[in-house]
Amino acid sequence: MRNILYDNPSGTPTTNMSPNKDLKGHKLLLIVPWDPPAGYIDGLHKSFPGLEVVHSNWDTWKESSLPSDVADEDWKTVTILLTGPKFPTKEAASNLQLVQLQSAGANYVLDNPLFKDTDIAFCTANGVHGPQIAEWIICTFLAFQHNIPRFLDNIKEHKWERSWDDSDTQDAVHQRVGILGYGSIGRQVARVAKALGMDVYAYTNRPRPTPESRRDDSFVVPGLGDPEGLLPSKWFSGTKPEEIHDFLSADLDLLVLALPLTPQTRGMIAAPQFKILEGKKTYVTNIGRGPVINTDDLITALNEGWIRGAALDVTDPEPLPKGHPLWDAKNIIITPHVSGNSTSYNQRLLSILDINLHRLSEGKEFMNRVSRKRGY
Amino acid sequence: MRNILYDNPSGTPTTNMSPNKDLKGHKLLLIVPWDPPAGYIDGLHKSFPGLEVVHSNWDTWKESSLPSDVADEDWKTVTILLTGPKFPTKEAASNLQLVQLQSAGANYVLDNPLFKDTDIAFCTANGVHGPQIAEWIICTFLAFQHNIPRFLDNIKEHKWERSWDDSDTQDAVHQRVGILGYGSIGRQVARVAKALGMDVYAYTNRPRPTPESRRDDSFVVPGLGDPEGLLPSKWFSGTKPEEIHDFLSADLDLLVLALPLTPQTRGMIAAPQFKILEGKKTYVTNIGRGPVINTDDLITALNEGWIRGAALDVTDPEPLPKGHPLWDAKNIIITPHVSGNSTSYNQRLLSILDINLHRLSEGKEFMNRVSRKRGY
Repeated sequence: MRNILYDNPSGTPTTNMSPNKDLKGHKLLLIVPWDPPAGYIDGLHKSFPGLEVVHSNWDTWKESSLPSDVADEDWKTVTILLTGPKFPTKEAASNLQLVQLQSAGANYVLDNPLFKDTDIAFCTANGVHGPQIAEWIICTFLAFQHNIPRFLDNIKEHKWERSWDDSDTQDAVHQRVGILGYGSIGRQVARVAKALGMDVYAYTNRPRPTPESRRDDSFVVPGLGDPEGLLPSKWFSGTKPEEIHDFLSADLDLLVLALPLTPQTRGMIAAPQFKILEGKKTYVTNIGRGPVINTDDLITALNEGWIRGAALDVTDPEPLPKGHPLWDAKNIIITPHVSGNSTSYNQRLLSILDINLHRLSEGKEFMNRVSRKRGY
Repeated sequence: MRNILYDNPSGTPTTNMSPNKDLKGHKLLLIVPWDPPAGYIDGLHKSFPGLEVVHSNWDTWKESSLPSDVADEDWKTVTILLTGPKFPTKEAASNLQLVQLQSAGANYVLDNPLFKDTDIAFCTANGVHGPQIAEWIICTFLAFQHNIPRFLDNIKEHKWERSWDDSDTQDAVHQRVGILGYGSIGRQVARVAKALGMDVYAYTNRPRPTPESRRDDSFVVPGLGDPEGLLPSKWFSGTKPEEIHDFLSADLDLLVLALPLTPQTRGMIAAPQFKILEGKKTYVTNIGRGPVINTDDLITALNEGWIRGAALDVTDPEPLPKGHPLWDAKNIIITPHVSGNSTSYNQRLLSILDINLHRLSEGKEFMNRVSRKRGY
């Protein structure tokens, strides 16, 4: 049996659901396809003596159903659930108060009755990707600027090649990065970019005129990111094409696309936008969703030299098939949607759950809670 | 004629050598194989109305002599000289007060009578390499951690390959970098590493027990580096092998070798040291001088998996010949001694000269001055 019950050391679970320091009466069900790290469950029991913890080793991303080893009577008493994209009915999990999702996005919950027709708190894993994706962005940009792909080829040929026709290396000092979508990933890019001596421009949907509006309360590894929104020297906003164009015209050396796919963002960066970027031959990076860029126009922009290069962790189509001309575009770096991978992913996810358990016990607002109004 | 005289707008040059606001009576000779940027000479004249400026376009690194277009009578009146490794005699340049070198190292001046037998101030370009070499170090480390070399190969094969036998990506958060040689390059590595969430350990020759001793007064791009020495969480020092071993034993994920080549540093990192690094499978980066590492032992360490990988901008021998087994070592990145290249090199060099002109005019201590006692 996959379903492991970690005894509640304080005694029989109760059904008392009111917030309390010990989380007495609460039952946490972890549905994750991995075992929590050594000491994790003990730590939970130490922090919350009243909390019952159940773990079901099950991959809700791969399996078509919920784990079969969680019985109907279990579901009735679950108050806190860590899961992927599979959910019980609201009738089955009638005592549920908090659902901690394993992904940064929450699109897949919006139409689910458990979300739509209840006021159960749904919280995302927003913030777990910041460090590794920011590293990927900075690394690919610096690799391009420092001719690393060429040197890697030379290693295979045993070739010590000190000079060539290209211009010399341009380092990042005083170059400008424009971050389209200033969330947890963009804010960590900003932190590293500032350390490199770069100037940071931010772009957000909604205007951020006040210090309060520039804050981001979602999860961040302590000490990283830009939770107060202090790093950009200039802040752009809006949803109209001309507002985006103002931003793209701002002499960007590096453009980071960190946007979700919505009707507004689909094809947002196409030939006219690449033409705007031609002034600075901006390096373009996309780690959001492939269709935010018009692929055909990107190929033209690269092969015609409108932009100096591009790094894509997401493509359109995806996976990118053999023979697709994007593979052969000039100065392209493509990786297969892996920039969010990190051996620290699960540990950060559990950090968010921990924070939310503490907030539940203290009766405070949850972190990363999905707004039923905004839908994210 | 290569020798261009930029008129001294305040009148006839004088031979009055005493420090003064206008640098009246001073004559600056720039021997560089490039033209100063537009407005640079005008800017000098604005700052120092008394300064005469002469430019000779000449490559003192390639040519075997000083430029022939500087006449004996010119040398007599030169008080400030920007040059590479070629120098006039002290008799010829009898009014010289300040020599600004174009390189970070000054080994080649130590035996020159112009340095040895005078008290003329010699200043290096120390600090001009910090940003670009730090970028190279961070970039190669992240590229290795994020499997970028493999993905670059896959691009050529049009291969969208999401999984393999290797473990997943380990991001830099909470990894530890040990910087052996905490000068201007190491301090900028520290700044970027901290922004990535890394822990920084520093190693210096001399102990740095006090805040004052941890400072570095050499040139730094404003806002970058770690001039106060505040970023390391732990500071090691010493010259004995066991002191180095203590440092190498400190669970380093990344070891940065930023050392000059001296009798003490030659072969400093060999089989016993790689064995110490085996505990953490430390990634080893060398941007100082190739012979600091024993090449044969490095090849063993890589091929036996004692260390996770290595990035070298300097090798022993150099250039690394075709067929050398280092080219084929596992998990190696080699670049041909280019990490210091930057399109901003000359501009930073002129910034140092500017600072020293201001210091001369104010009668203050020069920046980056070579100590006749220490020899650097």
